[in-house]
Amino acid sequence: MQKLLIIALAIGLVGSVTVDRAAAQQTPSPADLREKARAFSQPVPTELPADLGPAGTPAQVELGKFLYFDPRLSLSNQISCNSCHNIATGGVDNQVVSVGHQWAFDDRNAPTTLNAVFNLAQFWDGHSPDLVAQAHDPIADAREMAFNDQDVIRTITSIPQYVEMFDKAFPGDGDVTNLQVQEAIAYFEMTLLTPNSPYDRFLEGDDAALGPDALAGLALFVEKGCSGCHDGIGLGGTKYRKFGVVADPGETYRPVADLGRFDVTGDEADKYVYKVPLLRNIALTAPYFHTGSAWSLEEAVKVMGEAQLGEDLSEGDVAKIVAFLDTLTGDQPSIVLPSLPPSTATTPRPQP
Amino acid sequence: MQKLLIIALAIGLVGSVTVDRAAAQQTPSPADLREKARAFSQPVPTELPADLGPAGTPAQVELGKFLYFDPRLSLSNQISCNSCHNIATGGVDNQVVSVGHQWAFDDRNAPTTLNAVFNLAQFWDGHSPDLVAQAHDPIADAREMAFNDQDVIRTITSIPQYVEMFDKAFPGDGDVTNLQVQEAIAYFEMTLLTPNSPYDRFLEGDDAALGPDALAGLALFVEKGCSGCHDGIGLGGTKYRKFGVVADPGETYRPVADLGRFDVTGDEADKYVYKVPLLRNIALTAPYFHTGSAWSLEEAVKVMGEAQLGEDLSEGDVAKIVAFLDTLTGDQPSIVLPSLPPSTATTPRPQP
Repeated sequence: MQKLLIIALAIGLVGSVTVDRAAAQQTPSPADLREKARAFSQPVPTELPADLGPAGTPAQVELGKFLYFDPRLSLSNQISCNSCHNIATGGVDNQVVSVGHQWAFDDRNAPTTLNAVFNLAQFWDGHSPDLVAQAHDPIADAREMAFNDQDVIRTITSIPQYVEMFDKAFPGDGDVTNLQVQEAIAYFEMTLLTPNSPYDRFLEGDDAALGPDALAGLALFVEKGCSGCHDGIGLGGTKYRKFGVVADPGETYRPVADLGRFDVTGDEADKYVYKVPLLRNIALTAPYFHTGSAWSLEEAVKVMGEAQLGEDLSEGDVAKIVAFLDTLTGDQPSIVLPSLPPSTATTPRPQP
Repeated sequence: MQKLLIIALAIGLVGSVTVDRAAAQQTPSPADLREKARAFSQPVPTELPADLGPAGTPAQVELGKFLYFDPRLSLSNQISCNSCHNIATGGVDNQVVSVGHQWAFDDRNAPTTLNAVFNLAQFWDGHSPDLVAQAHDPIADAREMAFNDQDVIRTITSIPQYVEMFDKAFPGDGDVTNLQVQEAIAYFEMTLLTPNSPYDRFLEGDDAALGPDALAGLALFVEKGCSGCHDGIGLGGTKYRKFGVVADPGETYRPVADLGRFDVTGDEADKYVYKVPLLRNIALTAPYFHTGSAWSLEEAVKVMGEAQLGEDLSEGDVAKIVAFLDTLTGDQPSIVLPSLPPSTATTPRPQP
């Protein structure tokens, strides 16, 4: 082989060798790409990693599943966690913003509950430190489930089967509390992992898991700098960044009135700062951004290139990056719908 | 034994023997009750009976499940069949009337989809002859899913995975049609049977399946005449009857403005006539009546006694009948939530 190369150089084929090298640089070999990919990301595991645990007990997870699907955690008895974080549709509702109590509209796009445990904090502005804290707000929010803490407890304790389930899930903990409700929901959500995406199989050594476009897209994802923010297991969720690092993406994508994390910290530097969203299952969770203002991944990638990286990505590059993003869809959770215990004479009636 | 009876008669114990006989008449033996029960009702089968078939193919049932859970069959992309006929809650929404598009209220209480195949026709007024016909109206109704026939087809055909599923479910049938959509949903609903209730186990020979109160309740159910209308596999769904055969139940339960089946037939005799509802899983499906105006089974049984039978049932008799009704809850369908195929650039966007 070395001899052939020497001959090639000798007979003036250097030019074509250089071209080959350039092509090789455009799309590195799968092995090279895997090394780069592993440097910024890890596969979605099938079980909750120990450092994010402890996982819930089976009784806690089962209770959490019941609560996640129970519309009686809303004032109208019409809206459950699953209404806006629908496990049938990637853990989201595919709405610009969610539709809640009496058809009220939320202010930001609903993030997915799938793999949400990999977020450093919850909500776009990170105002809840974890899934347990998160589970409180949508129940209480007047535009969402509109149910106050007292009525949640009145509802649960009016249903003997729920009281029994709480006893089993939180033995010796005494009366049912709102914190237990939140913990159970969080324990269920911590099971909503989506392993085994083509990208994960690639990370684990399967060269054939990604097609040529997806490989080229992954190379661009690294080279252009996307992976600088979209990293970790979730390819996102590990940090906060200003939407518009390089250029203001404009009113459609980033309306001036929504100040993002500034409202949480009061820090001037946090204006228009949001948590970097997970890219896992991103092909299922349109529309995109905290505004739900981009309906296609092509549009979202283009805007990100301009606003975050100062890159005017070509149509071809956008298509390749999207081909890569399409490989981030993992096995969706297999959830058997619970059979919810019936209400009793003392259960608060729906107020729709 | 005969000798003892003769001695008893001889020594003047006839009175107590008479009392015993009366008690025995009040609650016949399980064997006698079973004979009476079998005369008017049959157990819920585990498979669709041949005379109600043919059942759907696995591809049709699976497609129907996807459609049943898909909120994209509504204009808002917010409401699926399962929103009002929630399989987690007995196939209903436990609302007085359903909440639909832009929080509109329906005019009658949502009947359950569980065992709905055992109804002689669908809707309270029977205006749809079967589940296939039924599946059209809630999608199209402006107060429910508010989606027109054309947009249903536009949505389905914009999603390649759905087109493939339709091809498999209806091979050689050409383009996707609204009728196919309805058929698939109906085929799925035809699988929503709830066998193995305590009452069914009793019907099949298990004396211990019903406790003493439920047995007494069953005896009353027959004796007072409830079983005259609530019969068949579904304990209902086999006929139409006026709500108020004996006495007008009053405005709360039967408002004058809702004329029931009269609106379908124009027949004066059909004023305030409704389909006799299924009693299967009735403990899960409060509130009751076409008005959703009775929140407890006790109230519903009391009203039925007065309006339909001219019986002022005692509190004790009502309690026993309710104990019997509580034994009609069967095994709920075990449904794995589908992972719905994502929308594409041409899928109509939600209009909430």
